[in-house]
Amino acid sequence: MNIILSRDSQVRVMEDTVTNAEKSFGQFCSLLAAYTRKTARLRDKADQLVKQLIDFANTENPEMRATLRNFAEDLAKVQDYRQAEVERLETKVVNPLKLYGVQIKQTRAEIKKFKSVRNNEIKQLEKLEKLRQKSPSDRQTISQAETSVQRASVDASRTSHQLEETVDTFQKQKLKDIQKIFSDFVTIEMVFHAKAVEVYSSAFQTLESYDLEKDLEDFRAKMHGVYGRYDARPPLMDTTLSPALPWSLAQNAQSTIRSQRKEAMSEDDSAEEDPVEDLRGQAQRLHQ
Amino acid sequence: MNIILSRDSQVRVMEDTVTNAEKSFGQFCSLLAAYTRKTARLRDKADQLVKQLIDFANTENPEMRATLRNFAEDLAKVQDYRQAEVERLETKVVNPLKLYGVQIKQTRAEIKKFKSVRNNEIKQLEKLEKLRQKSPSDRQTISQAETSVQRASVDASRTSHQLEETVDTFQKQKLKDIQKIFSDFVTIEMVFHAKAVEVYSSAFQTLESYDLEKDLEDFRAKMHGVYGRYDARPPLMDTTLSPALPWSLAQNAQSTIRSQRKEAMSEDDSAEEDPVEDLRGQAQRLHQ
Repeated sequence: MNIILSRDSQVRVMEDTVTNAEKSFGQFCSLLAAYTRKTARLRDKADQLVKQLIDFANTENPEMRATLRNFAEDLAKVQDYRQAEVERLETKVVNPLKLYGVQIKQTRAEIKKFKSVRNNEIKQLEKLEKLRQKSPSDRQTISQAETSVQRASVDASRTSHQLEETVDTFQKQKLKDIQKIFSDFVTIEMVFHAKAVEVYSSAFQTLESYDLEKDLEDFRAKMHGVYGRYDARPPLMDTTLSPALPWSLAQNAQSTIRSQRKEAMSEDDSAEEDPVEDLRGQAQRLHQ
Repeated sequence: MNIILSRDSQVRVMEDTVTNAEKSFGQFCSLLAAYTRKTARLRDKADQLVKQLIDFANTENPEMRATLRNFAEDLAKVQDYRQAEVERLETKVVNPLKLYGVQIKQTRAEIKKFKSVRNNEIKQLEKLEKLRQKSPSDRQTISQAETSVQRASVDASRTSHQLEETVDTFQKQKLKDIQKIFSDFVTIEMVFHAKAVEVYSSAFQTLESYDLEKDLEDFRAKMHGVYGRYDARPPLMDTTLSPALPWSLAQNAQSTIRSQRKEAMSEDDSAEEDPVEDLRGQAQRLHQ
């Protein structure tokens, strides 16, 4: 009976190993899938920030415009690396964890098979025990039952050996996979963070080298340019009207100013062709 | 009339500047607040992963247990830095953008004040114009109206000058703030990513140095230990029962095996005191 008991315990160790792995890998899988999704949402938010930066840049004077566009480009680059991070996490971390279910099912099937073989052994043993108690003198029937027990024991022993090997392989693979999956996780994260440091260092330089004074000069020129068409800063007393200037002419003058401002702005806008498109193209390249 | 027109345009430039800043800063504020929130969610997910890693580690053999606990500790460290990132983004990026509304309101009030002064100037001018057309010979009334126009013009000119200074200051502050806020954003991100690279490098070492063979030996010993109590690998034929061995004794033997396994596991568990508590304590220190 000791063999059967030890097998019972052995099966319990194996079942515990498999059950625990199934539960834990399932939880790791859903947690890491959620981690990947949250990373993707962070990327989406940053992508919106990039778009907003470019929109805002287009309303600013050349210095700030160039600074913000460069910064937006760097921020977009970080998101490209984040996108690569998301894809790698899915491929090298989440998917292997998902596929783990298959391996666990196979091992479970082996354990189930062993259990039925072991149950047969117990059944034969019980049969023999009953025979010995009921008809201890029926040597022939007892001998037949002993043969059945022996056959069942051989089966159980062989299956037990197979099971042991299966669970050993399972455990080895499990430990290897944990090491591999988390090493891959760490590598993917490390690469992303290292790239982010690199790109943000360049972004920092861009922002540091922004020339505020030059931009303010442009702004002031724009403001005074409106005056400038008539007189830079008219003397305070020069405010009496010439009755000769008709309202209609004044209206024309105003619309000229407007269209000129508009021209100046659209000229600035055309200096670079659709930066969003550029970034997307770049993103596609990086994602390939 | 040209002065009024130029002032009209000037006011429009100023209003555009303020309106655009208000809109853009509002959008930047909500985008960066959302970015910060998404970062916090990523931290939460990773915190759950840390907890799950520790739970799983506690069910594993000593080698894997130590490896996973060290890895979990590193992962928790990264979340501490992420928490610091979240707090800094709130303090140095989101809050300054929120406070921006106050500055915009002040500038809007200045523009409104100027507009009413300018409207008065136009009213006086129109009054003068009417007088000149209706009673061109009423020198005294026209002279009075001319004085009113002059006074209104002086007012408008002074207010215009003030407004110009206000908007100049506003624009200067705005450009400075953009540079400052995004530089802070980049610095905060850069510091976080650099720390993450550092911690993940150590985590990678931890995972690399994991000794799979040693762990498998432990696992095999555990499995064979169950056999080992009786006989390492009994000969196949030694399966006939001694009828002298009662079922009750066999039951006792089984429960002994169980309690020994349990003891071995609880001994392993007590090797380190509540690692989750440790990590929390560490997190608190880092956050202070």
